[in-house]
Amino acid sequence: MKKFLPIILTTTVLLTGGQTMAQSESNATEEQAKQVIFGFGELNPYGKYFTGKSYLKPITTTNGVPMYNVTFEPKCRNNWHIHHKGGQILLVTQGRGYYQEWGKPAQELHPGDVVNIPPETKHWHGAAKDSWFTHIAVEVPAKDGSNEWLERVSDEEYNKLK
Amino acid sequence: MKKFLPIILTTTVLLTGGQTMAQSESNATEEQAKQVIFGFGELNPYGKYFTGKSYLKPITTTNGVPMYNVTFEPKCRNNWHIHHKGGQILLVTQGRGYYQEWGKPAQELHPGDVVNIPPETKHWHGAAKDSWFTHIAVEVPAKDGSNEWLERVSDEEYNKLK
Repeated sequence: MKKFLPIILTTTVLLTGGQTMAQSESNATEEQAKQVIFGFGELNPYGKYFTGKSYLKPITTTNGVPMYNVTFEPKCRNNWHIHHKGGQILLVTQGRGYYQEWGKPAQELHPGDVVNIPPETKHWHGAAKDSWFTHIAVEVPAKDGSNEWLERVSDEEYNKLK
Repeated sequence: MKKFLPIILTTTVLLTGGQTMAQSESNATEEQAKQVIFGFGELNPYGKYFTGKSYLKPITTTNGVPMYNVTFEPKCRNNWHIHHKGGQILLVTQGRGYYQEWGKPAQELHPGDVVNIPPETKHWHGAAKDSWFTHIAVEVPAKDGSNEWLERVSDEEYNKLK
């Protein structure tokens, strides 16, 4: 049986609080990413909506609240997208990354951060340029819910981030 | 800003797989429990339904899927209880504990384990006798959902566990 001892950097930083953590303090390596709690999974079948490689591990798909572990390699991010009807909740478990809503500055994410993505909100999320990044994605159930995938996050936009 | 480096023992053990991990390998201390990812919180206001002390930290209560971090001191467990209409999903993040359904053997839990608790199922969960234990509890939304609290898990039953 495989056992491992990843060191997970955690923080009490809240998204509503100041983001004063030094940028590299929660960075994660590929080795840590592959051993992340709740699993690394397989190459993401939704890869065409991502820039770079990401990995998807279903955590539970029964019982009404689907949850997935999503791991992004450094620089990987998903396209701008909108969850219709039901939102999504992100629970950051490892590494350093970003969440950005359209028209707002990107928010740096660290382990322990929680993001409530309301429905009908254009946004993206993904890794920092020098860190692997993993979050649990919890789908908020909604009748006739759907995802609308939009344009890529351009290198110009992304490269402004630390 | 507070920062810390808890070492979280993780495992690929699934509840459906064999439980061959040595009993103490994922044990957590009080210090680790107080620094657990997603937060330790305050003394549980539902303490009257628990044997021993537990701690509750709301992770998110907006956006349709309430989630809480629940931390149990060693030997602490909740009473037998039933979630009516909507079930609950447990994501184990630290320490060693148990989940038991009425009429079935208790299942030992370690970080990375996921428990789908169906509605209308009498069960309890809590810590092992020598370890702090933390799980995220995700409430599955349901119209007119409720919890029914039942009898305590007796010392006689509990003390049979490792």
